[in-house]
Amino acid sequence: MKELSRLLMQMEFIREIDKLKYIQRKTKLFNSERHENDAEHSWHLAMMVMVLSEYANEPINVLKVLKMVLLHDIVEIDAGDTFLYDTTKDHTNTDEELIAAHRIFGILPEDMAKDFTEIWIEFENGESNDAKFAKAIDRLEPILQNISNQGGTWTEYAVSFDTVYQKIDKIKHGSTFLWDHVEELIEDFRKKV
Amino acid sequence: MKELSRLLMQMEFIREIDKLKYIQRKTKLFNSERHENDAEHSWHLAMMVMVLSEYANEPINVLKVLKMVLLHDIVEIDAGDTFLYDTTKDHTNTDEELIAAHRIFGILPEDMAKDFTEIWIEFENGESNDAKFAKAIDRLEPILQNISNQGGTWTEYAVSFDTVYQKIDKIKHGSTFLWDHVEELIEDFRKKV
Repeated sequence: MKELSRLLMQMEFIREIDKLKYIQRKTKLFNSERHENDAEHSWHLAMMVMVLSEYANEPINVLKVLKMVLLHDIVEIDAGDTFLYDTTKDHTNTDEELIAAHRIFGILPEDMAKDFTEIWIEFENGESNDAKFAKAIDRLEPILQNISNQGGTWTEYAVSFDTVYQKIDKIKHGSTFLWDHVEELIEDFRKKV
Repeated sequence: MKELSRLLMQMEFIREIDKLKYIQRKTKLFNSERHENDAEHSWHLAMMVMVLSEYANEPINVLKVLKMVLLHDIVEIDAGDTFLYDTTKDHTNTDEELIAAHRIFGILPEDMAKDFTEIWIEFENGESNDAKFAKAIDRLEPILQNISNQGGTWTEYAVSFDTVYQKIDKIKHGSTFLWDHVEELIEDFRKKV
């Protein structure tokens, strides 16, 4: 089972994904002017899953959800960061991202490439309980960041609160409890601006 | 069960750990002059656990190992990065880090603070199968980085190969298969310098 050729593919993948640390997001760190990169973002989501999993609407497989958030943005190494409030490009499941998934996960041994691609597609589809919760957490982090940064990307790109609510609606599908809290945070913030 | 006071503690923790993104390590990204930060490092270790867990010497609990690598450096928010080859300060389990663990994990609700602290201490002790494998992965990443960077911190701080081998010996305890590969990588590199 332990073959060197298999390990070499895995090592190449480990080197390749280092590039995620250069993919800059539009959102900034908490109370900061510094943009967040995708690797930092993915780590933060994983920690949030560890801390908040008890609030999922339905029972979830924490290990699966962790894998989802850890690898969900790896396609952006090729496809680039897609901004949630971009009006010209849809956020989910672009052809470009699918090609990227095949190239990057395809560096791995076949069984593992298949496994990682399936986890990524499950996340993108957002239909399983695990994916719904992972998506909720992915939406939650930038909201907290934006509120800490006087509106952050909402202010910078003049995004209306209607649009914000439309885009973050997915939180509800993962956790109505977290949604209620988020709504309150946004309304509190709205009163101040 | 779902109490707002509990969630508020969890949210405060989530905001607090953002600081890990500012803790700079001595090692640099692959083929790069840019230092890695602890959040990026922790994400990369988590991905490596996903990819390499099959090589653990003993059966491991992948979920537990992921939790270990995701939170193992959070204490450095207060205690700062400890350099593996630092000759004046021992790398593991300093008093400073224990105080940091109590402060930072202590932001969480009591049950969760206890859980996270126990996972961190298990990692630090390095005695369980899960901790041995997590430690092996923590040692492995900077070796790959240093080799890609013409010796990286080994060259920069004039660390002898004897010292390198002494410090990375722990990889063996987690995975003799990965150790054999690492030894080969280092010997190949050594021939070139």
